[in-house]
Amino acid sequence: MKANIKKIAVLTSGGDAPGMNAAVRAVVRSSVYYNLDVYGVYKGYDGLINGDIEQLQVRSVSNILSRGGTFLLSARSDEFRTKEGRAKAYDNFKANDLDALVVIGGDGSFTGADVFSQEYDVPVLGIPGTIDNDLAGTDFTIGYDTACNTATEAIDKIRDTASSHERLFFVEVMGRDAGFIAVNSGISGGAVAMLLPEHNWGIDDLIRRLQRGASSEKASNIVIVAEGCKLGSAYDIAAKVKAQLDYFDIRVTVLGHLQRGGSPTTSDRVLASRLGVAAVEGLLNGQSNVMVGVVNSNVVYTPISEAVKTIKKIDAEEFRIAKILSI
Amino acid sequence: MKANIKKIAVLTSGGDAPGMNAAVRAVVRSSVYYNLDVYGVYKGYDGLINGDIEQLQVRSVSNILSRGGTFLLSARSDEFRTKEGRAKAYDNFKANDLDALVVIGGDGSFTGADVFSQEYDVPVLGIPGTIDNDLAGTDFTIGYDTACNTATEAIDKIRDTASSHERLFFVEVMGRDAGFIAVNSGISGGAVAMLLPEHNWGIDDLIRRLQRGASSEKASNIVIVAEGCKLGSAYDIAAKVKAQLDYFDIRVTVLGHLQRGGSPTTSDRVLASRLGVAAVEGLLNGQSNVMVGVVNSNVVYTPISEAVKTIKKIDAEEFRIAKILSI
Amino acid sequence: MKANIKKIAVLTSGGDAPGMNAAVRAVVRSSVYYNLDVYGVYKGYDGLINGDIEQLQVRSVSNILSRGGTFLLSARSDEFRTKEGRAKAYDNFKANDLDALVVIGGDGSFTGADVFSQEYDVPVLGIPGTIDNDLAGTDFTIGYDTACNTATEAIDKIRDTASSHERLFFVEVMGRDAGFIAVNSGISGGAVAMLLPEHNWGIDDLIRRLQRGASSEKASNIVIVAEGCKLGSAYDIAAKVKAQLDYFDIRVTVLGHLQRGGSPTTSDRVLASRLGVAAVEGLLNGQSNVMVGVVNSNVVYTPISEAVKTIKKIDAEEFRIAKILSI
Amino acid sequence: MKANIKKIAVLTSGGDAPGMNAAVRAVVRSSVYYNLDVYGVYKGYDGLINGDIEQLQVRSVSNILSRGGTFLLSARSDEFRTKEGRAKAYDNFKANDLDALVVIGGDGSFTGADVFSQEYDVPVLGIPGTIDNDLAGTDFTIGYDTACNTATEAIDKIRDTASSHERLFFVEVMGRDAGFIAVNSGISGGAVAMLLPEHNWGIDDLIRRLQRGASSEKASNIVIVAEGCKLGSAYDIAAKVKAQLDYFDIRVTVLGHLQRGGSPTTSDRVLASRLGVAAVEGLLNGQSNVMVGVVNSNVVYTPISEAVKTIKKIDAEEFRIAKILSI
Repeated sequence: MKANIKKIAVLTSGGDAPGMNAAVRAVVRSSVYYNLDVYGVYKGYDGLINGDIEQLQVRSVSNILSRGGTFLLSARSDEFRTKEGRAKAYDNFKANDLDALVVIGGDGSFTGADVFSQEYDVPVLGIPGTIDNDLAGTDFTIGYDTACNTATEAIDKIRDTASSHERLFFVEVMGRDAGFIAVNSGISGGAVAMLLPEHNWGIDDLIRRLQRGASSEKASNIVIVAEGCKLGSAYDIAAKVKAQLDYFDIRVTVLGHLQRGGSPTTSDRVLASRLGVAAVEGLLNGQSNVMVGVVNSNVVYTPISEAVKTIKKIDAEEFRIAKILSI
Repeated sequence: MKANIKKIAVLTSGGDAPGMNAAVRAVVRSSVYYNLDVYGVYKGYDGLINGDIEQLQVRSVSNILSRGGTFLLSARSDEFRTKEGRAKAYDNFKANDLDALVVIGGDGSFTGADVFSQEYDVPVLGIPGTIDNDLAGTDFTIGYDTACNTATEAIDKIRDTASSHERLFFVEVMGRDAGFIAVNSGISGGAVAMLLPEHNWGIDDLIRRLQRGASSEKASNIVIVAEGCKLGSAYDIAAKVKAQLDYFDIRVTVLGHLQRGGSPTTSDRVLASRLGVAAVEGLLNGQSNVMVGVVNSNVVYTPISEAVKTIKKIDAEEFRIAKILSI
Repeated sequence: MKANIKKIAVLTSGGDAPGMNAAVRAVVRSSVYYNLDVYGVYKGYDGLINGDIEQLQVRSVSNILSRGGTFLLSARSDEFRTKEGRAKAYDNFKANDLDALVVIGGDGSFTGADVFSQEYDVPVLGIPGTIDNDLAGTDFTIGYDTACNTATEAIDKIRDTASSHERLFFVEVMGRDAGFIAVNSGISGGAVAMLLPEHNWGIDDLIRRLQRGASSEKASNIVIVAEGCKLGSAYDIAAKVKAQLDYFDIRVTVLGHLQRGGSPTTSDRVLASRLGVAAVEGLLNGQSNVMVGVVNSNVVYTPISEAVKTIKKIDAEEFRIAKILSI
Repeated sequence: MKANIKKIAVLTSGGDAPGMNAAVRAVVRSSVYYNLDVYGVYKGYDGLINGDIEQLQVRSVSNILSRGGTFLLSARSDEFRTKEGRAKAYDNFKANDLDALVVIGGDGSFTGADVFSQEYDVPVLGIPGTIDNDLAGTDFTIGYDTACNTATEAIDKIRDTASSHERLFFVEVMGRDAGFIAVNSGISGGAVAMLLPEHNWGIDDLIRRLQRGASSEKASNIVIVAEGCKLGSAYDIAAKVKAQLDYFDIRVTVLGHLQRGGSPTTSDRVLASRLGVAAVEGLLNGQSNVMVGVVNSNVVYTPISEAVKTIKKIDAEEFRIAKILSI
């Protein structure tokens, strides 16, 4: 089925992720390739509500492929959650003669897109852009690989100090609901343990793990704590461990927002490029209200409602590997 | 089927690749986890021939996860291609009471492993470690992701100069038989064209492509040339283009061996960790004369003869994307 | 005056700094060059107290030039602050027939060296290794340049997110007594303000500064907070600003220990190399109880007591520049 | 003396260098601070000749502090070497009511500035922006520190491969007339020898040096070759060495243009910021036909004719250190 699409808009929404610019660039360039007009909406849904919309050219996206953040700016929009907000957004959508909307963001952004698409029968296509990698319907989200590498590089630096002083470090990485960054950076950083939102480790399990490490005379140790870990923040956990194992010289580092920034990795740029092209081609082929992803190296389109509802699970295999390697 | 494996040896062979150390570490740590003795063979097959073999402990592989190269050293062995060489290797293999051999390397190394395994009925397990990504039986080889990122970072730097001076740069990347690095770094570096061993572009096709770019007033251009490109070296091609399009200010950079080094990326470390564990578990489960790889996120074991014989192809889809984005 | 030095020991003490390994390497290699025996003391002064001492060869320091941390390990020694501790240290010093001691560290480490040298008439030579750059007698300390670059790279990443979301970020960098890292990374990160231990800015000054920024419609802002800033931690300050300027979307990131790690920059490696050679040559020329530094590109030896007592001041000029550029 | 300066222009000329953008930003921001109008001239002197001139605002230089290259573009202008070219440039200079010109570049660019300033009595102020560090009147030029770090990082990667394969690598770095990058990256990369334009080493000296290395069983070796080395290119030298020492496994890497690009280091950004402010303040204080530099941490103004004529020498001390450390 060929859709009659002539003019599309693209916006970035929610927390920014490295590679969002690369995705916008791919949407713009493939639109031009297919003779579509393409418009950029600034500051996420707020820009749609306020009419902060501008036509984009190939020239508008020159030199952004390698840049972190999003030149379209991003925001979480409270107003778009209201009926009135979405009505204003639709007014601007029609006023600009737009035929379809590409939304680059995470699950919150997609939920909004879903409602909007159903209320106004607007073709919407989602591109997964979030460092959290917690969306079903794609093996990887844009920004995830870069965030993992940023975390790994930070852990490598912290290990220099940990080794030199024979210390135990707790390193907190992002991941409120999902421990993807924690597991991957934990394996690649050689952590002795990873505390994830998905798991039910008690403080005693961790203590046992660390005593085993100490008994094997491991001079330095790094424990990765995902933001959403049920045992508390990295500081909380460090205090509890200190209370029981006072022979450890303990330090805490919270990586925080630097995980969101930086020039995207090759994988993230290539993924963003593929998904940007596939988003435009999807719209041209009549896809609507779907998220485009890559599963087993193939482009797939998943209904947004499904991508948002299903919880992607961490590969149990990967966690098993982590345990074997942290003996 | 459980194999009776008590003592294994591991070696790295052929061109070094970032992540080889991470793979050795995983082989050592999972061997210890499964109560096996594990020995390191230095300088590839030559070390087997010369008895340059040493028992490894967890301690032997501390602090190598993040390091490029291979602390076991690597080499291409001419002697191992001879019957006499392999006989000496087998003598040392038996003298050390070894039960199995893990070989980390590329297709040349695996061919040797295949012959050795069949001649002496030795269980051999291959781990794909090469930046070229040209082995069947795995989606990615260890080192490939790092090499792509190294190439991309170099292209980003070259683009700074290309943009500032409105120049055309030819950047030669590694890849004698396969253009994997060229395509990926080309997409992620925003190249205007990529010249691959797999393709039959003539100089005229390239000229047309560049004229199109010039007409669209692209201020700077980068062309990626894979080492094995049939049109010649980056210098040859640059000279031919200069002869026809003398208004271009042309420069050439050959990235060379720096693509082989550097601290491995998160992906390469995680892949190496998975494959190292899977190699040991494969041997324990009776696998022999196979290469372990990851296909669609699952560990698979492929007969070495097959992995070596089949040529892995560049995803045509990826090349199609590259063309759309380089308008 | 030529001293009769045949055997020297080297140790690293206090907080680790990138380039300490490069300095140890230079001490070892120049000792070998001048036909001296050289010993490594592990874990700072504690190693001297416990006899954790080992002869070093050129081979012992291969491949450490590029590595963060210190392979000799480091610690702050409480025991060395006692007369008894220093007596044990001297016993081991004599037992190993050592003639002189090279101490790589910061002011705390040098104070100990000073006392030890005077108590036992031992030639001691200090090399300034600390990321804080707060020692008189040298323009730069080893590790400072790397720490500044690490902070700058982190700020660059945070700016990606700050720009994308039009946020105000408070970034806390190291520097308990001195704002060197804060000023340098502030200028190089384009911060709107820097809060230093040396200054007496009140919260109102900061508020005024930020309102000026807001009125000039600066979309995103970054404020650098040195650890030792009198206004409180980055979190405290952020809360106070939020209370008065609630239209700002505010975030905080504490860089923490990752500033201590990482591969040293070219400047730090070259500085460490120069100082390591100059330390050995200084001892051979009869220098004792001095710190070696580089002032205006020349090697100078300063009495340790002076280097420790004098407080190095931040260049007022640099702070003036920062103010002009943050209009 | 206060000069009557109201409107200034800034251009970048010659080979681009990391930090040029930071310098332009500092010129623009300090101009605004001092209530001057500031204009950007595109593509170096050619832009002056062709009237490619545009007023710059604070907004024009947002987000460029961290970027390599120069957004004003750069070029070497043949026309500006002619009397007619300079006459056209002066016509545009007057047509825009400009009072002074800031030129960011190297010696070629300054020579042109000198002639122009004398012919038309135009106040010209030079800022040293070149990776070569070969200008008198400043301890460091903008871009030099970044280029050294880029070279060092490349050497670190090459060393991974060199060590893994026990190879001898010849690495060619930039530096046609001066070996500054070669010496610094050689020391920081742990090279066994550095071949500089300033020295008269014959091939026999190098051979002797390498034999000494081989006899001390150094497994891998790296020799740095400056572009302008009198013994020939890295390829030539490698061939000559191979002819005499055929037991070496030899490889060559030419770093080339990637040394010019990349995000500037903290040092380069701070230096560029200082010099940009000092350039504007110098013009306001009546300085003309001078280059601004930093010598022993102080800002100094040197007559351009002098800065260009005098040859800055490599610190003999640094070369002495290099020799001691490469034993």
